[in-house]
Amino acid sequence: MTTWNFSSGPAILPKPVIEKAAAAILDFKGSGIGVLECSHRSKLYEPVVASAESRLRKLMGISDDYAVLFLQGGASTQFAQVPQNILASTDVADYTDTGTWASKAIKEAKLYGKVNVIASSKEADGTYKSIPKDLKLTPGAKYLHVTSNNTIFGTQLHAFPDVAVPLVSDMSSDICSRVVDVSKFGVIYAGAQKNLGPSGVTVVIVRKDLLGKVDRQIPTMMDYRTHIEAGSMFNTPPAFGIFVLDLVLEWLEGAGGIAGMQKINDAKAAKLYAEIDRNPLFAGTVALEDRSRMNVCFVPLNKDHEEPFKKLCLGRGMVDFTGHRSVGGFRASIYNAMPEAGIDAMIEAMRDFEKSNG
Amino acid sequence: MTTWNFSSGPAILPKPVIEKAAAAILDFKGSGIGVLECSHRSKLYEPVVASAESRLRKLMGISDDYAVLFLQGGASTQFAQVPQNILASTDVADYTDTGTWASKAIKEAKLYGKVNVIASSKEADGTYKSIPKDLKLTPGAKYLHVTSNNTIFGTQLHAFPDVAVPLVSDMSSDICSRVVDVSKFGVIYAGAQKNLGPSGVTVVIVRKDLLGKVDRQIPTMMDYRTHIEAGSMFNTPPAFGIFVLDLVLEWLEGAGGIAGMQKINDAKAAKLYAEIDRNPLFAGTVALEDRSRMNVCFVPLNKDHEEPFKKLCLGRGMVDFTGHRSVGGFRASIYNAMPEAGIDAMIEAMRDFEKSNG
Repeated sequence: MTTWNFSSGPAILPKPVIEKAAAAILDFKGSGIGVLECSHRSKLYEPVVASAESRLRKLMGISDDYAVLFLQGGASTQFAQVPQNILASTDVADYTDTGTWASKAIKEAKLYGKVNVIASSKEADGTYKSIPKDLKLTPGAKYLHVTSNNTIFGTQLHAFPDVAVPLVSDMSSDICSRVVDVSKFGVIYAGAQKNLGPSGVTVVIVRKDLLGKVDRQIPTMMDYRTHIEAGSMFNTPPAFGIFVLDLVLEWLEGAGGIAGMQKINDAKAAKLYAEIDRNPLFAGTVALEDRSRMNVCFVPLNKDHEEPFKKLCLGRGMVDFTGHRSVGGFRASIYNAMPEAGIDAMIEAMRDFEKSNG
Repeated sequence: MTTWNFSSGPAILPKPVIEKAAAAILDFKGSGIGVLECSHRSKLYEPVVASAESRLRKLMGISDDYAVLFLQGGASTQFAQVPQNILASTDVADYTDTGTWASKAIKEAKLYGKVNVIASSKEADGTYKSIPKDLKLTPGAKYLHVTSNNTIFGTQLHAFPDVAVPLVSDMSSDICSRVVDVSKFGVIYAGAQKNLGPSGVTVVIVRKDLLGKVDRQIPTMMDYRTHIEAGSMFNTPPAFGIFVLDLVLEWLEGAGGIAGMQKINDAKAAKLYAEIDRNPLFAGTVALEDRSRMNVCFVPLNKDHEEPFKKLCLGRGMVDFTGHRSVGGFRASIYNAMPEAGIDAMIEAMRDFEKSNG
């Protein structure tokens, strides 16, 4: 039986990537030693980091005005590291509060400068079901921080705000899933463990001219300039994670690049949402226009259907499709690596469940 | 031909660990999904972190007074994170300068409190060949920071100083290679990529009563208490790295634990140093009493022998045995996972080289 992995992250990776990663652990490039065991400064490994950077630059259209870094600590570390590097203590930054991760980013930024939460879609019960539009920025704001996709609640910013200040975005759960105009951004950061690779690698894309302007001493490892100067090799990088990320990017090139992937993702999401809307037993949980194409959240209209539908899906090899504990119901995370057949399996289960329970 | 991997890190891992890691990438515990692809909060993965912590506690004899954390960012991040968490701005900490990494730790600590470098073995040429003894601590010092093993120069602290203040130690390159009395330490930290696993995981062992006493706000991800409360799962951990680390610890248990491993390590190092001392063509580079049992540094007495000896070793499947660029010569890193046969191969090469060039 095929297993369909709907995990929100760490998440499904392309099958050829998995096979190459396992093989490289046993023997890296015919060297007799495995990829986990070779020095990051060896001739064997060093080209991997350059390759990953070069592929990401081409795929996303990242100009030389930007540095591309492979760091550690996840997006949660970036919540502090971004303002630490680019927000002086007297500066103001605008943030939108669109979910759990956005609110954590806001909390950390307050340690470094003035933070204005210019819009929030937080509901009375603590959940979020939409993305605020028509933003009014603070005059003189240094940047506007947005979360591009809210993994937990299943909302997504389909049109980045057209503003005069640089955008800063946590793209952890939709980076490389759709075309974005990088030139609008000051910083893009993303944990790799959804669309790019395993956990333990954080991609940071930063406009270099924003750096060196804050009124504080930054610890060496937190200073983006440290890693820019050293090409992400100041200290031992998460070498295996970057290796897998490079394989994922290679796979993405072969799958039509980001524009090609976006078409596939749009079709996959449209298909699943169509069934959620058609099927009388299920309903989506968020505003139609803000639905995420990565994390499809839905609930059974009859609460008693939750367990039997879950059981049906598990019996068909579907795993990790339950909603986040703060939302309940179901969440099908359908990142780049999820094939259309996985969506078809979920749709078939919904239809069969309707037949027996409708 | 067997490959002998003398890399200083990322470094050789035990063969059974490598085989299990590769297999788990293809299919984790018969689940149909790989270990890179499962949620860190899944029933499948979550026991891994608890297992790794429990094994490390038993192996090292770590009491409940201490937290055991699996973090990201390497020892280089700990250089700042340790003082940020336990050194108030008016406190004094004593540091010994015994190598490149010690001096980096000193630099970062100065951002947080007063740092006294109470001893240094730095030579005029910037190298280090010994470990200072007879330390005189600053009255009222909060802790004494020492680097237990200096990977680059091949020196090792064979007897930790007997002091009244807690020791703080970077043990990146010799953790779990020898028995230490954890109760003497306030903090032990180590990048995993030498004796414990792949790069991208940092082990931090911290005495809990030292926390919460500094006069600063600590960003959430830098605060040890965040990770203690969340059992190293505040955000997505370096899941695969911890999985491999758990496998390494399982292997270490089977190899006689740390006391058993220490005996093997002592014998391996003694054998190689004996040949360096016997062979008229080679010499060790550091003080006899401070020689590292992990990183064995030596040079040919005739500089012209460097290239031909290197060539001979490469031809026999030995890799990554050249000294750090700041030292030159040769460095055989012989961590826990290096079998005695690897040492024998190096010794045989030295003897054969002597026969043809002596």
